[in-house]
Amino acid sequence: MLPIETEADFAAWMGSIQARMEGALARHLPGAQQAPARLHQAMRYAALEGGKRVRPLLTFAAGELVGADPARLDVAACAVEMVHSYSLVHDDMPCIDDDILRRGKRTVHVEYDEATALLVGDALQTLAFQLLAEHTAAGDAATQLDMLRTLAVAAGSRGMAGGQAIDLESTGKTLSQTELEFMHVRKTGALISAAVKLGALCAGPCPAALEQYANRVGLAFQVVDDVLDTEASTATLGKTAGKDSKQGKPTYVSAMGVARARQFAEELRLGAHAALDTLGSGARTRRLRQVADFVVLRKF
Amino acid sequence: MLPIETEADFAAWMGSIQARMEGALARHLPGAQQAPARLHQAMRYAALEGGKRVRPLLTFAAGELVGADPARLDVAACAVEMVHSYSLVHDDMPCIDDDILRRGKRTVHVEYDEATALLVGDALQTLAFQLLAEHTAAGDAATQLDMLRTLAVAAGSRGMAGGQAIDLESTGKTLSQTELEFMHVRKTGALISAAVKLGALCAGPCPAALEQYANRVGLAFQVVDDVLDTEASTATLGKTAGKDSKQGKPTYVSAMGVARARQFAEELRLGAHAALDTLGSGARTRRLRQVADFVVLRKF
Repeated sequence: MLPIETEADFAAWMGSIQARMEGALARHLPGAQQAPARLHQAMRYAALEGGKRVRPLLTFAAGELVGADPARLDVAACAVEMVHSYSLVHDDMPCIDDDILRRGKRTVHVEYDEATALLVGDALQTLAFQLLAEHTAAGDAATQLDMLRTLAVAAGSRGMAGGQAIDLESTGKTLSQTELEFMHVRKTGALISAAVKLGALCAGPCPAALEQYANRVGLAFQVVDDVLDTEASTATLGKTAGKDSKQGKPTYVSAMGVARARQFAEELRLGAHAALDTLGSGARTRRLRQVADFVVLRKF
Repeated sequence: MLPIETEADFAAWMGSIQARMEGALARHLPGAQQAPARLHQAMRYAALEGGKRVRPLLTFAAGELVGADPARLDVAACAVEMVHSYSLVHDDMPCIDDDILRRGKRTVHVEYDEATALLVGDALQTLAFQLLAEHTAAGDAATQLDMLRTLAVAAGSRGMAGGQAIDLESTGKTLSQTELEFMHVRKTGALISAAVKLGALCAGPCPAALEQYANRVGLAFQVVDDVLDTEASTATLGKTAGKDSKQGKPTYVSAMGVARARQFAEELRLGAHAALDTLGSGARTRRLRQVADFVVLRKF
């Protein structure tokens, strides 16, 4: 657990990154009056004013480790967050999770309509790649191509979209811990890992230990999500609570119970810290440690 | 009109590019047995064995003008075709066009299910950008970033996805020719232009005259599509004919009648040829001329 002064320091830093992201996303999204205006308004509705911005926190924390230029981190973090936002819009649609609440607001297909939600997701994904292709985010063009590749692999059919497909196929089934991990490494872990790697790539190659950290935090995020889906309220989460068990979805809680799931998340948190030990102690890795703690200890 | 020996020569070339694309797409798509297998099978179902491959024809014809390496053209053409395929899968879904037939086969959401169709489109788009980021498609990384940017701008909310949004909003309305053009330049023209530009960028900068050619062919393609939707049969088109007027969609035919729409397409064809005149006559521009003729004079 973090001492109270660290918590206050982290909360201030988190708030500053969240505010910074809100500004960067608002700048990079098409203006609400630009044609087609309804689509652009819906894209802004989907991507702005929302969420904990866990992925951008990781991008900026990794960037702090390697001394990356914050302007580059803005581009990388916006790209990752746009991919994340697109996935939420599509996952909430009637043909997948059929959810009406997200980040405390009505989901895009409820606020607008299904066709618009489909196009919003499509266009947010495109914009993520456009940003990374047209703004300087790395020291050279070859590294920037590597960032694009990293993001695409994390988002695609062998990453996030593939994890979602496995999730759909698994509803009503019992999965082993290995099968659950296979799914979640893709569905949630891949993009969270990419957020970390992209932060490092803004300044140079990504250290192997940082990839280890990223993989552990990525999995921990999902384990904690499963616990919170069981234990927290809809009001706290800003999305419908208790949905997984209602829909018969296999989760870490259904596979191992709440107590062991919490313990597993704690092990992953300690594993993430251990990976950072090889990268140095103190100020350089402080933010990454704090974000790992936040991911596991959060209440929403 | 083309003399008969040119038609035979063009038909042979078109067949060779179509076969080449089928092989390249099959190689670049994830294997049908790779997990998640159902998603990967559906992606292959959506992208393989289909269509005239007009965009790849344009990429290869532009590449021939500038002497581009065919291996690079494969990458560029696959990326463009994957974006096109993703857009067809999503446009056919119940919340947009609700169509059951595409390229003579059942649409993806009919053959599989809606959720799979959504993820297939998402993952095909991602794969397009992944391909362009991880395979050599240009002489240097900076040009390759420019290719990625060009494709993203063409596909996004100010390009193809935006055109689709305008199309949805326009159903039941009467649009002026200027408004129709604003929509179609985005919905269809942008990606067709990108196909040409990417072919040129495989070898170097894209000549301005080639961009002019691309814009004219892109618009001509849509005008002819509108005419064929009125005049051709479902069997010939491989997709449901007569849908636009049934759905009350504004088209060039509804705006100006069949005869004037045909004449407009012919003017655009001649305009495309005129743009090429500044790039040289004879062998270098022959394929581009033939593709422009094919786009306008096709019967399906």
